[in-house]
Amino acid sequence: MAPRYAPSLRGRLPWLILILETIFISIFLFSISFEPAEASKVYPAFQDINVMIFLGFGFLLTFMRRFGFSGVGFNLLIAAFGIQWAIILDGVLFHFKEGSVTINMPSLLIGSMSTVPALISAGALLGKVNPVQLIWVTLVEVTLFTVNRWIISDLFMIEKHASLMFVHIFGAYFGLAIAWFFYHPLLGKNTEKERSQPTSHLFSLLGSLFLWMFWPTFNSVLVPNASKRRNAVYNTYYALAVSAVTAFSFSVCTNARGKLNMVHIRNAVLAGGVAVGFSAYFIYSAWIAMTIGFLAGMISALGFTYIQAYLNSAIQIHDTCGVHATFGLPGLLGGVAYVVLTSVDNWDNLTRLGYQAVIGISCILVTLIMSLVGGLLTGLFLTCKLWNAPQHWKYFDDQAYWEFPHLANKL
Amino acid sequence: MAPRYAPSLRGRLPWLILILETIFISIFLFSISFEPAEASKVYPAFQDINVMIFLGFGFLLTFMRRFGFSGVGFNLLIAAFGIQWAIILDGVLFHFKEGSVTINMPSLLIGSMSTVPALISAGALLGKVNPVQLIWVTLVEVTLFTVNRWIISDLFMIEKHASLMFVHIFGAYFGLAIAWFFYHPLLGKNTEKERSQPTSHLFSLLGSLFLWMFWPTFNSVLVPNASKRRNAVYNTYYALAVSAVTAFSFSVCTNARGKLNMVHIRNAVLAGGVAVGFSAYFIYSAWIAMTIGFLAGMISALGFTYIQAYLNSAIQIHDTCGVHATFGLPGLLGGVAYVVLTSVDNWDNLTRLGYQAVIGISCILVTLIMSLVGGLLTGLFLTCKLWNAPQHWKYFDDQAYWEFPHLANKL
Amino acid sequence: MAPRYAPSLRGRLPWLILILETIFISIFLFSISFEPAEASKVYPAFQDINVMIFLGFGFLLTFMRRFGFSGVGFNLLIAAFGIQWAIILDGVLFHFKEGSVTINMPSLLIGSMSTVPALISAGALLGKVNPVQLIWVTLVEVTLFTVNRWIISDLFMIEKHASLMFVHIFGAYFGLAIAWFFYHPLLGKNTEKERSQPTSHLFSLLGSLFLWMFWPTFNSVLVPNASKRRNAVYNTYYALAVSAVTAFSFSVCTNARGKLNMVHIRNAVLAGGVAVGFSAYFIYSAWIAMTIGFLAGMISALGFTYIQAYLNSAIQIHDTCGVHATFGLPGLLGGVAYVVLTSVDNWDNLTRLGYQAVIGISCILVTLIMSLVGGLLTGLFLTCKLWNAPQHWKYFDDQAYWEFPHLANKL
Repeated sequence: MAPRYAPSLRGRLPWLILILETIFISIFLFSISFEPAEASKVYPAFQDINVMIFLGFGFLLTFMRRFGFSGVGFNLLIAAFGIQWAIILDGVLFHFKEGSVTINMPSLLIGSMSTVPALISAGALLGKVNPVQLIWVTLVEVTLFTVNRWIISDLFMIEKHASLMFVHIFGAYFGLAIAWFFYHPLLGKNTEKERSQPTSHLFSLLGSLFLWMFWPTFNSVLVPNASKRRNAVYNTYYALAVSAVTAFSFSVCTNARGKLNMVHIRNAVLAGGVAVGFSAYFIYSAWIAMTIGFLAGMISALGFTYIQAYLNSAIQIHDTCGVHATFGLPGLLGGVAYVVLTSVDNWDNLTRLGYQAVIGISCILVTLIMSLVGGLLTGLFLTCKLWNAPQHWKYFDDQAYWEFPHLANKL
Repeated sequence: MAPRYAPSLRGRLPWLILILETIFISIFLFSISFEPAEASKVYPAFQDINVMIFLGFGFLLTFMRRFGFSGVGFNLLIAAFGIQWAIILDGVLFHFKEGSVTINMPSLLIGSMSTVPALISAGALLGKVNPVQLIWVTLVEVTLFTVNRWIISDLFMIEKHASLMFVHIFGAYFGLAIAWFFYHPLLGKNTEKERSQPTSHLFSLLGSLFLWMFWPTFNSVLVPNASKRRNAVYNTYYALAVSAVTAFSFSVCTNARGKLNMVHIRNAVLAGGVAVGFSAYFIYSAWIAMTIGFLAGMISALGFTYIQAYLNSAIQIHDTCGVHATFGLPGLLGGVAYVVLTSVDNWDNLTRLGYQAVIGISCILVTLIMSLVGGLLTGLFLTCKLWNAPQHWKYFDDQAYWEFPHLANKL
Repeated sequence: MAPRYAPSLRGRLPWLILILETIFISIFLFSISFEPAEASKVYPAFQDINVMIFLGFGFLLTFMRRFGFSGVGFNLLIAAFGIQWAIILDGVLFHFKEGSVTINMPSLLIGSMSTVPALISAGALLGKVNPVQLIWVTLVEVTLFTVNRWIISDLFMIEKHASLMFVHIFGAYFGLAIAWFFYHPLLGKNTEKERSQPTSHLFSLLGSLFLWMFWPTFNSVLVPNASKRRNAVYNTYYALAVSAVTAFSFSVCTNARGKLNMVHIRNAVLAGGVAVGFSAYFIYSAWIAMTIGFLAGMISALGFTYIQAYLNSAIQIHDTCGVHATFGLPGLLGGVAYVVLTSVDNWDNLTRLGYQAVIGISCILVTLIMSLVGGLLTGLFLTCKLWNAPQHWKYFDDQAYWEFPHLANKL
């Protein structure tokens, strides 16, 4: 008898979605209103962020030969779903006043950007969980990340826009912690379904390029000061350019036959944008951003070559999309750079230097702990039989979730 | 003897194009000039609309395994052609003053958006007509839609930007009426050429995502009041998010095996943007937009499952791209919502309520009649032997129109 | 024994890149700083240009069935690399003051746009040179183009933004001159590797559409006067629309079987934007732009059909991407149109008319000479054994440069 998949999605996904949507609409009905008047200069930047989230992250996940529909489709589902929840949460935690919440364009931006951790985690889990599980991941992760953001911005007094730059670290380690629960010894063995093909690589590179091109918007859009916002754009641009070039260099260096690896290129080019995110707005010389970009491209390419296989075999964490080397390591590098740069700014005042360093390191540690503990608890919850997790022989297969009426044979 | 295709395109297409282009250039030469001074804040929005028209609609039509070139290529042809004609018509009907016409950025925007009905109709006809016929469809449809717009805005006194929101209803029913003339019993039988393949689905989803992401621009760009424009952006954004999530839910619900259908996802996610178009600028609470998005996603997914097959078998209208469920039904829903919402606004004044309701319903009816009657007459004209319509065994085949020097074998 | 490729890239590419990157960062460290305050209205246009360079040109070069990774990957490498060098050069040549250089948003824009000649030349060389050679092409060509721009703007006193419009002529003829050195009798014989497939054509068309849609930004972004900038947008838009429609017409006309050729469509639609670039900002009637677009579409389609084969067989220049018909010929047409239009503006003053004509013609001739002589010298330099140029049987093959761990069999 063929394994039955239909009941799992039909019995759970639609109802879960409909119930949660109804709850969201009710919350909006009773307590959320638009801000009466507001400038809309930020609209083009808002569209850049949308392109990054729906197209960039979506197509970045199409690299598997048999899992393209799920890559981009589930990304759309959890992003469209997560944004609504993130806007509600942001409103409740940061804009609650007299029983009601007012929403403006920055709320939408923060909503979109707060969904990014879930999209990154989905990259680590790609192909190993079903959409019902992804909906749960999104719900929990957006909530925890917003709480994390509240701790960083309201307790540690870090600027609000900087608190959003922890998305990369949070998303990567949350996803890795969950991935630990869905490990199977056959993963990462380059089985047929885990393979890519040139077309799927190109679609994925398309997504990566959109992320790459619009990353200066991501790092700058919420910076309130115009001059610092311009700095954030410049520095991100330079860091990205250098990390792209560096990625090519280290991809060749680390390959035994001196060839380029598309997986490195597609992901390591982004590392510069990730790493410079924390400090882009206050760096006053391009060469510092370029150096961070250089280190990020290097660390990311080396992370793919040396650390990912180790994670898989020794720690038994299978990271489908390589989010650790793309977002985790460069994010940590960026955090360290932030601590160093803010400390250097205060080198004439040792008290202040120490204070800044402690604050910076605490924020990173809090984010790491929140994401790892949160991920482990979420992973435990997701192993519950109720969610009908796919068996490992159905991993990485669109046909488990999508109808292929037009295809008699294989993809 | 092999069927001869070459004469049909060579004997007609180039000359038709060259004659019409010469006429367009002459009209511009004698009567059209630029507006002397003008702000250009709207430029980024103008580019969003361009991306929607040339890339969004173009790639949306690449879903057939053997008809991708024609899908995106003919879309480029009729859009680039139709925009010129739409700008001329808009100038003559709305901006004619002292024997001359002055053009500004909004003219270009209205020109682009007035071409959308032709692009939607081309979706219903995809694969069944040749480019000569598509040029005629564009010429006639842009003309009739501009007249329809004039009736709605100058006779029924509907705001100009709202009059452009009838593009979806007009395009869908105009296209369906023409499609009736090109029906063949073998259509819709999932024959080999009508099939998709994963790569063509992904290209199509790429187009769909660009439409989805920039739809807030489409619904807001021509709204003159800044605060209402912001409302239109917000409401469209929420409606799209909800309709995307709902589309996933109903796609699974309506599938016997509980699987997702890429055709639903690709098209139904757009339904929220279509349906909220009319009222997006004056809705003051997000939950109303979300509810419209919810209903639109549901109606669109149900329309694909239950109505499209009925259209094909019972009424003998083959709707290649499913424009009825993507644009037609959500457009009508949006029209009804507009009537209800404007009426509710005037519930304390019964006369005014009745007046608003009659005006709204009349606009919808006029659009339906104009599009259906215009489509039927155009369809009749297109069956003329002069245009060398492709025979049904050449439907959905790029090789009828495109040179494949590089391909010895099949696609 | 199989030919060994690994050493060539591993022994040279990483070190060349790392050394040059270190030099760039050092230059930035010692002499380049940000401008203290500056408006950032130009940011959306800056993003349009980025999309054109990284995505547009990148995907335009994915049309070969086995060379897609290299097409878009090497484009990313040389663009990210060239921009850094172009920004340094532009700073040193145009903004050097008191031992230091100040950079602002227009510097970044000019940097991006000065890299375009290298991207165009890369199109002519696509598949015949390795990335080490491309890095050298970029270094030399960006330098020579910046010098050429300095001659045109500081000696011939052409407006700065117009001096950047020579990118197309410069890139095309520089690339063709280099291509002469890498000719082989088997090229252009439609061998298996030179072929496209529908998917690669669609990816390439995607790139082309992004170029097409954002070309109005390219032709207008550096025009300082707001009213002239608006003119540049309008005229480019009209020229592109007409050249797209014309390309379809002449593609059918010139085909023996009356079919469309995707190569013509993809490239000739761009010709209007190239040709109108020089004069877009001062043309005051759309019909002139439309006529230029018409001629450009015609010349480009005819150039593909009649001149490209002649170049290949008689002059022994193999132009992989057809840059001569896409950028070279329309660029020259645009130069001639510029000379004619500026002369006509001064028809009442014969001295001034003659002066303008001489200046215009001189600029074109200087650009042609610089690009051809520079290209020949660069080509000679690239034949040096040190760079391990690929042998002709490894032309057009991703597997020479990229690792394909996932592919046991062919692409």
